[in-house]
Amino acid sequence: MTPTNVDTSQPPISCPADLKALPLEKLPELAEQIRQTLIATLAETGGHLGPNLGVVELTLAMHRVFDTPKDKFVFDVAHQGYVHKMITGRWDKIHTIRQFHGLNGFLLRSESEHDCYGAGHAGTSVGAALGMATGRDLKGSDDHVICVAGDAAFTCGPVFEALNNVAAHTKRLIIVLNDNEWSIDKNVGAIAGYFNAIATNPGFANLHEKAAKFVEFMLGGGVRKLAERVEKTAKGLLLPQSEGAHNRSTMFDEFGIRYYGPIDGHNLPLLIQTFDFLKNQNEPVILHVLTEKGRGYKPALEDPLKFHGLGKYNVETGEVAASDKPTYSQIYGRSVTDFAKEDKSIVAITGAMPGGTGLIVFKKEIPERYFDVGIAEEHAALFACGLAVQGLRPFLTIYSTFMQRAIDMIIHDMAIQNLPVRLCMDRGGLSGDDGPTHHGLFDISYLRGIPGLVHMQPKDEDEFVDMLWTMANYDKGPIAIRYPRGNGPGVTPKQKPQLLEIGKGELIADGSDVALIGLGEMVPIAQQAKKVLEEKGLSVALINPRWIKPLDGALIDSIAKKVKVVCTLEDHVLMNGFGCGVIEHLNDAGVKTPVVRIGWPDEFVEHGSVGGLRKKHGLTVENTVEKVLAKLG
Amino acid sequence: MTPTNVDTSQPPISCPADLKALPLEKLPELAEQIRQTLIATLAETGGHLGPNLGVVELTLAMHRVFDTPKDKFVFDVAHQGYVHKMITGRWDKIHTIRQFHGLNGFLLRSESEHDCYGAGHAGTSVGAALGMATGRDLKGSDDHVICVAGDAAFTCGPVFEALNNVAAHTKRLIIVLNDNEWSIDKNVGAIAGYFNAIATNPGFANLHEKAAKFVEFMLGGGVRKLAERVEKTAKGLLLPQSEGAHNRSTMFDEFGIRYYGPIDGHNLPLLIQTFDFLKNQNEPVILHVLTEKGRGYKPALEDPLKFHGLGKYNVETGEVAASDKPTYSQIYGRSVTDFAKEDKSIVAITGAMPGGTGLIVFKKEIPERYFDVGIAEEHAALFACGLAVQGLRPFLTIYSTFMQRAIDMIIHDMAIQNLPVRLCMDRGGLSGDDGPTHHGLFDISYLRGIPGLVHMQPKDEDEFVDMLWTMANYDKGPIAIRYPRGNGPGVTPKQKPQLLEIGKGELIADGSDVALIGLGEMVPIAQQAKKVLEEKGLSVALINPRWIKPLDGALIDSIAKKVKVVCTLEDHVLMNGFGCGVIEHLNDAGVKTPVVRIGWPDEFVEHGSVGGLRKKHGLTVENTVEKVLAKLG
Repeated sequence: MTPTNVDTSQPPISCPADLKALPLEKLPELAEQIRQTLIATLAETGGHLGPNLGVVELTLAMHRVFDTPKDKFVFDVAHQGYVHKMITGRWDKIHTIRQFHGLNGFLLRSESEHDCYGAGHAGTSVGAALGMATGRDLKGSDDHVICVAGDAAFTCGPVFEALNNVAAHTKRLIIVLNDNEWSIDKNVGAIAGYFNAIATNPGFANLHEKAAKFVEFMLGGGVRKLAERVEKTAKGLLLPQSEGAHNRSTMFDEFGIRYYGPIDGHNLPLLIQTFDFLKNQNEPVILHVLTEKGRGYKPALEDPLKFHGLGKYNVETGEVAASDKPTYSQIYGRSVTDFAKEDKSIVAITGAMPGGTGLIVFKKEIPERYFDVGIAEEHAALFACGLAVQGLRPFLTIYSTFMQRAIDMIIHDMAIQNLPVRLCMDRGGLSGDDGPTHHGLFDISYLRGIPGLVHMQPKDEDEFVDMLWTMANYDKGPIAIRYPRGNGPGVTPKQKPQLLEIGKGELIADGSDVALIGLGEMVPIAQQAKKVLEEKGLSVALINPRWIKPLDGALIDSIAKKVKVVCTLEDHVLMNGFGCGVIEHLNDAGVKTPVVRIGWPDEFVEHGSVGGLRKKHGLTVENTVEKVLAKLG
Repeated sequence: MTPTNVDTSQPPISCPADLKALPLEKLPELAEQIRQTLIATLAETGGHLGPNLGVVELTLAMHRVFDTPKDKFVFDVAHQGYVHKMITGRWDKIHTIRQFHGLNGFLLRSESEHDCYGAGHAGTSVGAALGMATGRDLKGSDDHVICVAGDAAFTCGPVFEALNNVAAHTKRLIIVLNDNEWSIDKNVGAIAGYFNAIATNPGFANLHEKAAKFVEFMLGGGVRKLAERVEKTAKGLLLPQSEGAHNRSTMFDEFGIRYYGPIDGHNLPLLIQTFDFLKNQNEPVILHVLTEKGRGYKPALEDPLKFHGLGKYNVETGEVAASDKPTYSQIYGRSVTDFAKEDKSIVAITGAMPGGTGLIVFKKEIPERYFDVGIAEEHAALFACGLAVQGLRPFLTIYSTFMQRAIDMIIHDMAIQNLPVRLCMDRGGLSGDDGPTHHGLFDISYLRGIPGLVHMQPKDEDEFVDMLWTMANYDKGPIAIRYPRGNGPGVTPKQKPQLLEIGKGELIADGSDVALIGLGEMVPIAQQAKKVLEEKGLSVALINPRWIKPLDGALIDSIAKKVKVVCTLEDHVLMNGFGCGVIEHLNDAGVKTPVVRIGWPDEFVEHGSVGGLRKKHGLTVENTVEKVLAKLG
């Protein structure tokens, strides 16, 4: 079957009951249909292809054995939820994924009753599932709670915190450890090694082969017998802690969670048999399944990193149209690496994102000062603080939305102690098609109240490098930068970056009627609005503030005092955002000029294209002009 | 020796070198002097007595073997750092602890060069120490990094995240697991059981006895020989993974961190011998020491919870003067328990704080719906979300300063999904003598930007219960409350609480010159300021806003429009605080009345009495009056 043969408008199943009604031997064909649909569809929409190709059989087996929405499936990060969506009535909409008004690229409670829990950040599933299992117990109902977490999630502190509580809080919880050895980039740390040691241990590997043979045998003898005999036989095959096999006890067993596995995550009969067995256990269990990221699509198997999540690609070759302009992330990686070659105190830290953050260059060129700590933002921040104590200067590189995990450390460890850590927040601002779990719209809100924390945003690529250079030379305490996903306006950085004065904004143009203050990537929009307003005969000043904190109060006052309206523009929520800081400053300075603000509203912004969402929520030239004119009266 | 015999003004040692110069046999006497000094001194100052009595020998042994500030000691939470302070030149100041301009109750980098890392929140030490060790390796220096973490810290996700990275990042790090089976309250969860299983395992316990006998023998034969023979002998005594002893391998060994122990944490020679051995190992190690919280003081041994941290007490009896008024925490525990008796959907969650939060009552009376998840705020929030999915209504009870750990979950899991979790933030506002790591001065800043999140603060105990009742009846999404440490003004709650309208403030008094808006506990200060201003002939309105979000804009507008000055008062930082929201609202509503704000400045506030610190930073009647008059001109 080639991708072009797939008819995505005619789903072979439309609900989990359809799946259950299929003869067992038809499932491999269904799995293949799902794979080919995903490969063909995502070539047009983009999305998390690799993770979804890896969980086709696993998701089918879960829906074959359990009954959502009564039973609860919690998918960690939930970027591997496409197959679940296709099974639960959304096959015909899968071509709309990640598009405005289409399916979300993760799970959303509001999208389907089969999605009991949404996610987008890693490591939340076990804790939430434990809450559901405990709630189920309190209610006295008998539904099952199954959570599916990738091996990378097990580098997250919250997963460990949850594991520590499982045995005390419920006797019925099924945790599926979906082990593909990848987070987004290749996994790091002891736990990854530990899982690998289990998977390659002859004692364990043996089990898997025996189990496969058993299933083959049973299928030969008729499917019906399988269900009857599964209870007594599966226990012997899968239970790792049989007498005399002490070396097969795992860390999970120490936590009171019975470990089973590892088993082949692409063997449908085995998966079904195993879930049938596990659903009747009266103790929390963890099932270790081995899956292959990108299974069934050669380009994805050959480059799992690229195919973790990507934009449109050529189905035949897997090729992706390359941008000719470098992204902010690429400029970041290149610049920090170049600085670090001159300054031996510079170290770079990422939480499992060498590709996404652009630090892949640093990793290649200065591996000894590059640290990937896994999906562990709290630790990343603490580790940075420890390095700073020793006189090193860490560039802590974490997306704005994931930095939310490290706020306590930023306050308690970094800011109180005034340690010179550089917080570099990629994806600061709307993330677009990833949706609400990924938009970086809160970092000003959660950082501006922290005493002493410097925070900035560049208007273009050239200023970005100047700001990074300024950070590299700032030793007084923590300093943060937010910059957008993807490409900037395309200004090539100059040969040698220049130091910027902290707290000193840029007056791009003076004016006497209106002052536009555009933060970062909103400067181009402000520039266009300026032009339109000038065409209406108004004199328009334009400020690039550069610094969110400390704000250039002197510059803003001097302009605000002489105009009739100030207008701030920011790619951030308005409440406790940049414009709020401007209003606060003007009030304190006694400047009474009214301020209109352009930014994101007090609601969670859905997924869609950046352009479309800006239009919907008024982050546009038109709305800016309209609001300013309305305030002018 | 009785406490009154202790002369605290004549320290027997004044620096770590003095300690090293003492004959080994003098150390027990020094330990006793330290204990008696602490018992006598803290009876007057209050403080973390129990934890410090438990680490006397451990801290002495560390300073005997290692050399700070060259070597780095990182104490988790750092409330057990008093002994370290006494050894490192601060013995004569220990009587000033937790008092304004006195020693801080935790560690502060600014207080001594021997304090390389401060803390106040649990679970940060391993990550920071790993950063220091890695930094040391990069610099090529040879200093030692030793971190001391209580067993309770091992319920924290960040510790696990750090452990996952240790082996990959350094070969030289000493982690001391100070196991006393207590966090603040008795430990919970699998890891606590696991440590206990190790400590009571005959294979391990045996080691400890053998080691003790060995040390006795060696001491008998002369101390000098000990150092010579320690290398070859200690290895045999302490190394748990000898041939054939598979059951003595631990979880830590799986992580590539060599486990040693458990050993008696009060046996000075054994501790010294062990550190001498460990400092020469070329792999990361964890040393499990068993200590007794409150060691050497009967009242503390009998009630470790009470003596974890407390105010003044009677040295002879251990009695603490009881307040006749209930604290906010006590009212909280009582009220939520009463509500839960009527409403079976209510569940209570704490992170190791049944005592501090007042939930001890809930634990006793409704144990099946009470959940202590350990020091694990991220998990606590996720667990609450899972319970909410099942229709339960969790009261998530976490101090304001510790809620900083759960911000990502509040945004990503709770608010985006609109799950009805009640966030109850005790110690919202200045925490006083605990200092900057414990002040709850940032929760408005980090919560106000989150769409849909309701947030409130009561003016007194009666309104507090009304607010809790309103939360108990609010099902639309997450809802938060902040309330102060300790006692309120003393208003006895009425018999039956009443429902408050969300977003509806209280106009306490109307007026035409000045409008005072006092949030929560600032209402009494505003009332007094009102009186003073009225004595000066001004007409003063007084608003109790109740709701931080949604703000009662209509009420505030209606009053603000007719007065000449608005003054907000809050127990929170000004930047991105409550008053900032008022200014933002008035700007958007086109009300030009200037706003003066009373609150905490853009700097970290030191420790001291609440009254003293309010005076220093202007959260007073006098400053309010002065600022209002100045703005009136």
